[in-house]
Amino acid sequence: MNQHRFVPFSNVKLNRGFWKDRYELNKTVSVQNVRLRFEDSGRFDAMRFNYLKNGRKPHYFFDSDVAKWMEAVAYLIEKDPDSMRAHEALCEELIDCMEKAQRPDGYLNSEHQQIEPENIFKDRGHHELYCAGHLIEAAVAYHKATGRDRFLKIMERYCDCIERAFITEKTAAFVTPGHEEIELALYKLYRHTGNEKYKQMAEFFLINRGTDYVEYKNVSYNPYSAQDDVDIYHLKDANGHSVRALYLYSGIADMALENGDETLYQNLEQVFEDITERKMYITGGVGSTRVYEGFTVPYDLPNHTAYTESCCAIAMMLFASRMRRIARKAKYGHLMERVLYNSMLSSTSLDGKSFFYENPLEIALEEYDREVAALPKFRERLPITQRVEVFSCSCCPPNINRFFAELGSYICVEEGDSICVEQYISSDLKTAFGNLSIFEQYALDGKATLSSEDYTAGKITVRIPEWSRGVRAELNGKAVVPTICDGYAYFEVEKNFTLALDFCIAPMFVAANPRIRADVGRVALVRGPVVYCLEKADNGAHLNQITVDTADLEKVVVTDDFHHLYSISMPAYRDALQDRLYFAAEEAKSTPVTVKFIPYFAFANRGESDMLVWVRKKA
Amino acid sequence: MNQHRFVPFSNVKLNRGFWKDRYELNKTVSVQNVRLRFEDSGRFDAMRFNYLKNGRKPHYFFDSDVAKWMEAVAYLIEKDPDSMRAHEALCEELIDCMEKAQRPDGYLNSEHQQIEPENIFKDRGHHELYCAGHLIEAAVAYHKATGRDRFLKIMERYCDCIERAFITEKTAAFVTPGHEEIELALYKLYRHTGNEKYKQMAEFFLINRGTDYVEYKNVSYNPYSAQDDVDIYHLKDANGHSVRALYLYSGIADMALENGDETLYQNLEQVFEDITERKMYITGGVGSTRVYEGFTVPYDLPNHTAYTESCCAIAMMLFASRMRRIARKAKYGHLMERVLYNSMLSSTSLDGKSFFYENPLEIALEEYDREVAALPKFRERLPITQRVEVFSCSCCPPNINRFFAELGSYICVEEGDSICVEQYISSDLKTAFGNLSIFEQYALDGKATLSSEDYTAGKITVRIPEWSRGVRAELNGKAVVPTICDGYAYFEVEKNFTLALDFCIAPMFVAANPRIRADVGRVALVRGPVVYCLEKADNGAHLNQITVDTADLEKVVVTDDFHHLYSISMPAYRDALQDRLYFAAEEAKSTPVTVKFIPYFAFANRGESDMLVWVRKKA
Repeated sequence: MNQHRFVPFSNVKLNRGFWKDRYELNKTVSVQNVRLRFEDSGRFDAMRFNYLKNGRKPHYFFDSDVAKWMEAVAYLIEKDPDSMRAHEALCEELIDCMEKAQRPDGYLNSEHQQIEPENIFKDRGHHELYCAGHLIEAAVAYHKATGRDRFLKIMERYCDCIERAFITEKTAAFVTPGHEEIELALYKLYRHTGNEKYKQMAEFFLINRGTDYVEYKNVSYNPYSAQDDVDIYHLKDANGHSVRALYLYSGIADMALENGDETLYQNLEQVFEDITERKMYITGGVGSTRVYEGFTVPYDLPNHTAYTESCCAIAMMLFASRMRRIARKAKYGHLMERVLYNSMLSSTSLDGKSFFYENPLEIALEEYDREVAALPKFRERLPITQRVEVFSCSCCPPNINRFFAELGSYICVEEGDSICVEQYISSDLKTAFGNLSIFEQYALDGKATLSSEDYTAGKITVRIPEWSRGVRAELNGKAVVPTICDGYAYFEVEKNFTLALDFCIAPMFVAANPRIRADVGRVALVRGPVVYCLEKADNGAHLNQITVDTADLEKVVVTDDFHHLYSISMPAYRDALQDRLYFAAEEAKSTPVTVKFIPYFAFANRGESDMLVWVRKKA
Repeated sequence: MNQHRFVPFSNVKLNRGFWKDRYELNKTVSVQNVRLRFEDSGRFDAMRFNYLKNGRKPHYFFDSDVAKWMEAVAYLIEKDPDSMRAHEALCEELIDCMEKAQRPDGYLNSEHQQIEPENIFKDRGHHELYCAGHLIEAAVAYHKATGRDRFLKIMERYCDCIERAFITEKTAAFVTPGHEEIELALYKLYRHTGNEKYKQMAEFFLINRGTDYVEYKNVSYNPYSAQDDVDIYHLKDANGHSVRALYLYSGIADMALENGDETLYQNLEQVFEDITERKMYITGGVGSTRVYEGFTVPYDLPNHTAYTESCCAIAMMLFASRMRRIARKAKYGHLMERVLYNSMLSSTSLDGKSFFYENPLEIALEEYDREVAALPKFRERLPITQRVEVFSCSCCPPNINRFFAELGSYICVEEGDSICVEQYISSDLKTAFGNLSIFEQYALDGKATLSSEDYTAGKITVRIPEWSRGVRAELNGKAVVPTICDGYAYFEVEKNFTLALDFCIAPMFVAANPRIRADVGRVALVRGPVVYCLEKADNGAHLNQITVDTADLEKVVVTDDFHHLYSISMPAYRDALQDRLYFAAEEAKSTPVTVKFIPYFAFANRGESDMLVWVRKKA
């Protein structure tokens, strides 16, 4: 079993272009905006333990929101400390507060300590271990970034407390967390400190999962939705709450990686297959129902009620990147690319200020009209149609903050004797085999150029994207034909090389497995990694009245007119309006129209609008 | 304004064929089965005022269930008293109980008197006036059938009590009922007794509607869903709970008819148009959401979550038949035919024992699978897939009992100087102009023969069904060309005549208004009045993978092989199975198959099965 390593963001500088812009937007706008909204909404006050002073009641997941924001800030401090002084000061203030508030036994949770100390480790649904996990991740990041270990020590003391309550003395009312997260956090802490105890604690929570179902007091989950239906050695399907499940699978992948456990990896392979071949939207989003925010049955992928939480996009990246560390299989990188350009990017508005919790694949405003008739308590819950700055359950925005802040960590893998480029993102990387530069306008032209002046491995591997229509390569200006195998291209290179890659991008229509009811008779337009959609703003309302002929693909016009992104126009047909409710089918008519597709991730940036990914196709 | 009269079922004998079979099935099986289940479920015990004795708690709508069953029995007694002796004995027993239990002030409600006398006329949601309405209808029917007025007198005393509480003394906590029904019942009582007071009471409840919104205590409805958003003189749209709304519109139609009120009729015309041109399923079913069991916004007609309560089918018949009394417009008869052969018939199993509450237009069993993952309280409510013998809210089964028992009342209209045949149902009718016989196998061959030996009107009018491809007529064996105008054909006839009509039935595909999202790109197969569907039992699962080419209509094979009904087979295509979740659209394949359609109303009679009315069409 491999233990490949992604070149960490510490050694990666995003240097220009599409992803650099998004990185900077997150750094300058999103992180600041989340800070403002967390200040407004009392999240920082919770961690200041100010409840008795100001009466602003903390929620039991507030600590995790604050932790994720702090983790983002830590990553940004590491790369550019000067720009983060104001945020660093707030982090220090919060660490002061935590240090003062931490109980002598090490326990630390702003809500339980201030509101319900009698319930500490009593209710599995209360997210204490989930909050602890995010605080651990933040503390590790903060120590790496600043060299100061105060936050880390706090969390090590808290880990001692957790170890006693759950493992040594077993005073907790449950064995494994309601919301997974602490498992992968403990592996991070183990890797950072080298302390085997944290690895053992992670294994404890993983091995006991699925063997100890305790119903949550505050909300009913069943074993299935709580990933308690099977233990990790019998895992086969992706089940239940999607974020929780994917955090669990990431933790299991860490365990497989650390222990060289082939059985666990094979189980995770089945889970990965279950997700990507049966339970994933074309955008890489997962979560088919709002009911328990989860995976459901195979091929159940409704578009307008898709749950597809933004945190799932992040969790998919966590899971897939861990799987890629264990084995070089192109499917992991394919998935990461799909998520990055679609469900991940759609989470944030183009101005960086606002966020989606759900990322549906269809918005039909008429569906919302019908809710006018119902009292709020009777309303069907449909996804919001516009991104907002903060949610009452605002897990996604700071998760997005921390994700973009360490985006550099998902580009290249250091294998034993070489480098493997997984994602084409313009950057300068310091690798074990010398410096490597990536230059690309990949999403626009399907091309990327790799270069180095001091590369010592003698060979380099690159992932061929699944949409590629062919690989054209030039090494130092001369055409070369690489060895291609299982989705990767292998090149031999000198110390000083320039490798220009062209994956022959072209728009194409994609069909869905006919088991997916919502997508039958429909196609989605994609161009390279980017899934496209129709919006009312360009195409009028009632987007389901539009039909495309896939044979018209040759007539598309690609235009660089949409926020520096390509829009795609093509001929289509629109069902002619009818006065009658039902009429002889032979009287149905359609009229030719031109439709304009925009990248899915950019939807809902021009006010409220109908939106559609899966468009009816002329059969 | 007309005051046409339907020939009452008292003067109609269903003599053979399709509808006679259903009438007999209702009489011999359904009525008996509802009786058994109502005995099991304590409904009759409620009316026996046995709660203190046996502790079986009545529900506040039980009286209406019992009343509808008694009304059905009364209609059947009127036609065939000997067959109903056992049921009549139960009716007498229940009338005894009511007589004893009725309070001195006339009040009568088994639930309120036994469980919560303190709440009498205090909660608008408690269905007391609704129960009273159904008891009134039953009492009138029972008096007509038996000549015994004991039940009628009980209800007249109850009406006095209601008049005092709501009109004279105004001690009730609300002004108009939560669930309409008493309005049309009071008109029935008025017409039966000639007592103007009941007409005035009906008008009181109608005129005050929409002017006095009082929220229900036990369940939240808003003015919109409770038909309280506008008064009856400003009514334009069909809104809110569908059964309640349609009972209201029926009551208003009675008022328009009795008072010759053209304004009310014109408002109802707009409502009728709103229903039939914007809010009705192709089966004649209405009610697009389970949330408040109601009408929603125009063109919101989802198939697999259709509410389309069986009681709505009945209520549509009540409304449309009243509209037909006011004006001879073919659309009323068209609607009644659509309802009769589809949403009305689908309510009952082919063996007559079981009933649907909801009548969806699609069942995708995979949709139900996903609910496995959720705890019951989190489950989306999907319609049941198999008819059952009784529901906890079992309003539909006895309503179906009474409907079929007076089916004869919907066939012919006596106009001022002639007869107008609205529905082609084999029967012998005694009309004001002599005897008339109808012989038909209408749903099979699109033909009907009218004949008489003593017909005195000299002319006869017949409705031309909307699906007709032409009218061929033979009078006394010779081809004739009738005058045709606005959906009716006019014939001059002798005293002794035989008029053979052929409406040229043929299968056809129907398309839906492209505003209906659920039906875009789809067609429904109809043949004459009957809407067809695909079932898994004939066509395998995943019916959405099937596509029909409407041009293949000429290749259909009509076979008399399905419970003496026609099935229709034709070539079609099935999407080829795919392993992959997403793939290049050009790789999508389909394979030719033969599909078999069966009448929609006969679905779910061969075990649990996928079902689909709106089939994808090859564009």
